[in-house]
Amino acid sequence: MKHGEFTERPSGLPPPRMSPVSATGIPVPTSVGPGAVHPDHIGAPGEYPFTRGIFPDGYNGRMWTIRQYSGFGTAEESNERYKFLLAQGQTGLSVALDLPTQCGYDPTHPMARSEIGKVGVSLSNLSEAEILFQGLDLAKISTSFTINGTAAIVYAMYLAVADKQGVPRDKLTGTIQNDILKEYVARGTWIFPVKPSMRLVADSILYSNDVSPRFNAISIAGAHVRDAGCTAAEEMAYTLANGLAYVDELQARGGDVEKFAKRLSFFFYVHMDFFDEIAKFRAGRRLWAKLMKERYGAIDPKAQHFRFGVVCGGSSLVAPQPYNNVIRVAVETMAAVLGGAQSIFTCAFDEAFQIPTETSAELAVRTQQIIAFESGIGRTVDPLGGSYFLEQHTDRMEEAITKVMGEIDAYGGVVRAIEEGWIQMRLAERGLERKLKADSGESVIVGQNHFRREGEQIAVGDVFTLDSDRRAARAGEIPAGAGHAQPGGRRHGAGAADRGGAQRPREPDAAPGRLLPCLCDGGRDGVRPEEGMGRVQGAGEPMTTQTTERPLQGKRILIGKPGLDGHDIGAKIIALTLRNAGAEVIYTGLRRSPEQIARVAVDEGVDALGLSILSGSHKELVVDVFACLRELDAADIKVFVGGTIPHPDQQALRDLGVAGVYTADMPLADVVAALARALS
Amino acid sequence: MKHGEFTERPSGLPPPRMSPVSATGIPVPTSVGPGAVHPDHIGAPGEYPFTRGIFPDGYNGRMWTIRQYSGFGTAEESNERYKFLLAQGQTGLSVALDLPTQCGYDPTHPMARSEIGKVGVSLSNLSEAEILFQGLDLAKISTSFTINGTAAIVYAMYLAVADKQGVPRDKLTGTIQNDILKEYVARGTWIFPVKPSMRLVADSILYSNDVSPRFNAISIAGAHVRDAGCTAAEEMAYTLANGLAYVDELQARGGDVEKFAKRLSFFFYVHMDFFDEIAKFRAGRRLWAKLMKERYGAIDPKAQHFRFGVVCGGSSLVAPQPYNNVIRVAVETMAAVLGGAQSIFTCAFDEAFQIPTETSAELAVRTQQIIAFESGIGRTVDPLGGSYFLEQHTDRMEEAITKVMGEIDAYGGVVRAIEEGWIQMRLAERGLERKLKADSGESVIVGQNHFRREGEQIAVGDVFTLDSDRRAARAGEIPAGAGHAQPGGRRHGAGAADRGGAQRPREPDAAPGRLLPCLCDGGRDGVRPEEGMGRVQGAGEPMTTQTTERPLQGKRILIGKPGLDGHDIGAKIIALTLRNAGAEVIYTGLRRSPEQIARVAVDEGVDALGLSILSGSHKELVVDVFACLRELDAADIKVFVGGTIPHPDQQALRDLGVAGVYTADMPLADVVAALARALS
Repeated sequence: MKHGEFTERPSGLPPPRMSPVSATGIPVPTSVGPGAVHPDHIGAPGEYPFTRGIFPDGYNGRMWTIRQYSGFGTAEESNERYKFLLAQGQTGLSVALDLPTQCGYDPTHPMARSEIGKVGVSLSNLSEAEILFQGLDLAKISTSFTINGTAAIVYAMYLAVADKQGVPRDKLTGTIQNDILKEYVARGTWIFPVKPSMRLVADSILYSNDVSPRFNAISIAGAHVRDAGCTAAEEMAYTLANGLAYVDELQARGGDVEKFAKRLSFFFYVHMDFFDEIAKFRAGRRLWAKLMKERYGAIDPKAQHFRFGVVCGGSSLVAPQPYNNVIRVAVETMAAVLGGAQSIFTCAFDEAFQIPTETSAELAVRTQQIIAFESGIGRTVDPLGGSYFLEQHTDRMEEAITKVMGEIDAYGGVVRAIEEGWIQMRLAERGLERKLKADSGESVIVGQNHFRREGEQIAVGDVFTLDSDRRAARAGEIPAGAGHAQPGGRRHGAGAADRGGAQRPREPDAAPGRLLPCLCDGGRDGVRPEEGMGRVQGAGEPMTTQTTERPLQGKRILIGKPGLDGHDIGAKIIALTLRNAGAEVIYTGLRRSPEQIARVAVDEGVDALGLSILSGSHKELVVDVFACLRELDAADIKVFVGGTIPHPDQQALRDLGVAGVYTADMPLADVVAALARALS
Repeated sequence: MKHGEFTERPSGLPPPRMSPVSATGIPVPTSVGPGAVHPDHIGAPGEYPFTRGIFPDGYNGRMWTIRQYSGFGTAEESNERYKFLLAQGQTGLSVALDLPTQCGYDPTHPMARSEIGKVGVSLSNLSEAEILFQGLDLAKISTSFTINGTAAIVYAMYLAVADKQGVPRDKLTGTIQNDILKEYVARGTWIFPVKPSMRLVADSILYSNDVSPRFNAISIAGAHVRDAGCTAAEEMAYTLANGLAYVDELQARGGDVEKFAKRLSFFFYVHMDFFDEIAKFRAGRRLWAKLMKERYGAIDPKAQHFRFGVVCGGSSLVAPQPYNNVIRVAVETMAAVLGGAQSIFTCAFDEAFQIPTETSAELAVRTQQIIAFESGIGRTVDPLGGSYFLEQHTDRMEEAITKVMGEIDAYGGVVRAIEEGWIQMRLAERGLERKLKADSGESVIVGQNHFRREGEQIAVGDVFTLDSDRRAARAGEIPAGAGHAQPGGRRHGAGAADRGGAQRPREPDAAPGRLLPCLCDGGRDGVRPEEGMGRVQGAGEPMTTQTTERPLQGKRILIGKPGLDGHDIGAKIIALTLRNAGAEVIYTGLRRSPEQIARVAVDEGVDALGLSILSGSHKELVVDVFACLRELDAADIKVFVGGTIPHPDQQALRDLGVAGVYTADMPLADVVAALARALS
């Protein structure tokens, strides 16, 4: 309070609060000097342990790929959007697939009906895959698929499209996500139990290494656990732990680390704590190199390389004051570049509440172009290398990551920790912590918990709407035998599942690569894996919250997760919160049909039914749930909806009879109070 | 072209082009290692030479001030906008004043008529000043005034408002810009010749040091020369050179460096080259400390401190794809914070073409809040300190700045360089260079010269319009004697000018502080300094451009600068370009009335008249010019308009009879071609 001009601020404003610890919990000293730097930790760019990047020349040798996650509706519509994005200067494709495709449901399946084309493009057979890439030269464009449970099938389709285009398979570049472990933890689109899934992943990696050696057959993804609420250090720790589990599996199946490790890639979120994020990438790169060299003996530097793509945005974006998200994504993109990302997806500012419009999608691409070509930060490799603070922060981040990895090891490894729900429980804890910090204003979210105008409404220029009837109709139009080469091939048939047995868990002694050729044939037909044959449930340990009153004492509430969406951290946080508020809470688990949920609600005699829906299918699912309740003479059960509900739809849901719509930015205490009022 | 997934991009897209030199021309190596760092150059935060900041605790001790430049229309309207901005979390005021106020014209003067309230608020007497700060406690809010030629008068008004509010003068914090030297070079609102102006500046500083010791009586501003086109190194060099000239003047007038140097402050633009900007601030801080200590013997560290505010935006923002500017301002704000700025003004994204709306002004404030409270980059002081690359770049930036300062010294000092037009010429050269680089696409401006959609229109949600008739009417309403304390005091009278002789240059032997008490009395009346009594003209040296054809051979063209706007770099660039295209070009110089310009056009028998207008007064001025041409029977002279013309106004100007509207983003070659067609 001594520096003249810059002393005073008007009364009534909240004082600036910069926490002395980073978002991931690492103490940040007021001042750091040269003594904090250990030059031997750092190394040179392109040299082990790769703190400063895997390439000696950074982005001078290779720009990062501008790779926007996109896909919705039909293959035609998504193909059009891809061409639009490429025309705007995007340099790689990232295909978003809808939940039926991710979960292996045919579009005609009752569970699929309301989900077709919602969170991604519907891709149920090869002719759709051909349309999706029409006019796009697969020899020149790298394509990333966010696909896991059915990754091998989609990969097979991609090979088939390449074959049809006459593109040699060894020219293909891109990635299938194919990271099943995090699906059990945070994303929910697993189909088989953990161990057979691991076998399928390893098989597809080894097959791909041979057939399409420039294609990354896995992208080990921390993004989803991060978005579920964990810290940057935990995100990296869980992801590296998963990576080690895949390496173990690959080695157990006879893979050569010097070969397969060159085709492992990683995928993360970037959130708002700038130096946490940069340090996370630098520390992760160093740790992975050390692990590959020291634990697995990888000698080729490329087999030690930690290559990664990122998403900037995600749950760091919020619906209130949506243009603030443009600023957030810009800051996060800077962190991604300064952290040395190989590919970047920048979320559109309206992605927190709707499918991006062309305008918002274009602005997201522009963010990367402005940072690439106007800011100049890509000119020199690792431009922050040597910074006293950042090098210290990188060391501390590495310690924090190593600590969490040690905890996983102590538990018995990541597979066991997942199977027993230990990681899921930790994530739910973190998710609740993060939400309570936001609710209390302890962590500042500008425009949401601070600096929000009274009565402010969300207003954007354009709203993108998907007509799901049109989607469903489109699915119905696909002629039988739309897959090529096999006239009369059954579109809804089990295809490869019958022939290759991909849907039935087998012992992991099958020779690597045996499944994949079958699936590749199957890709030509269209396949429909069966519904999940195993289940991994969270432990549901008691947790404390800041709620001390019990306004819901005596109420029975069912939290339902209808449809195929597997992002259930919000459902878990609400379930824990309501239980802490005194309610008896039942959670249905993932992927329940409206019929199943209504039946449980009636059987359990609940007072209220809360539906958690993030897939955009809220209208259809709510209509179905109401119909089922009426059929069971249970129309008096009050229905609430939470999740990602665009503003215009909230009133529509209320008009359908929903008693309350609670979006993610609503403080938990307000949710409890509103529920208590509604049920009193 | 060897790293797998990230190889290919679709054909037809321009390749990413990262120049191996920074925007300011400093080579950027692909990779920099620890050998580049000279620890003795750096020092510790809060310690000489202050490379790492003037405070040991950075923003932990004091957050930067969120200080948005704002002001338009009447005092009432601006007061309302200030209250809005403070409610959004702004922490200091920055008053934009209109051109009549800046140039010392009464609102009723014919030259003022069309300019009232356009580029800032109209402030012609004390009662308006009282309205401007109504409801704002001057003891708690720091206020910055962008005012130069009439700075002493506005400062006197501020003291008078404080007196009336009962706020002790020694509680006042804030800044008057009061940097007259750069007005001759880049901004044009000087009133007196250089030497008497320097005396007035020194007098007001010394007076303020005594009367309002926490108030910065000068903000030495590089922002305007930067925006005129020079590099970051030149911006800093010219500004430091100007600073030294003020220090010399202050010492010559008996000032004590240990005292006055604590109240010198600086002001810069932040443009898009991220590390150039950070290095500029770190190098400037170090250089100023060395100069103050070594050349002037300042011992108190506070007298060595280089304190500065910044603008993020300015000419780095462009009208096409206006939301891109949100991204630019975010990147620039990061650079300002990492460079250690004491106050930040973030331009609104629509500021490139209109007065910001409340929505865009709010978003600009949010940019700072998100970076302050979400990114965490302010937690530790100088977080990039020690970075191999940045420390090297800071050293090289310091060398580049020192080189330009040496050239100014070699020319005979900054006052001589300005009086003889040498700096003006260099600026015009740089401005033309920058424009040609943008035209050719060599420097990427996303959405303007690259990544622009065919036929794309500028579209924003809201347009802010000022009704200038309302402004003029408001000016006419002010009752005679609106200034307080002296009933019957002449509102339009010369006031202090008559009493203190401020308008007449005097020899610099007058005792310091003698002028200011008189002006402070005058502030109570409202004063009207006379029109400029001296003139400093650019040298107009021949310059080369890339134009080789001479399509305008044989044409005579007058470039006119009507009204009070002094930003004439655009006019000079166009004049040089047309001359290089073969035309005979006459330039009127600054601040000409429509009558004067029409008369010159007729006397010189020109084929075309180009009007350069950046003040927003284009409609009124064009109507007046046409009326004058008609009166002179010269309606056949074709009139063109260039400058800052909002999109909707461009058609309005054409409807008035303007033959062409050329905005800043139009390539010069296209301007020449369009003119040649129009005149053929």
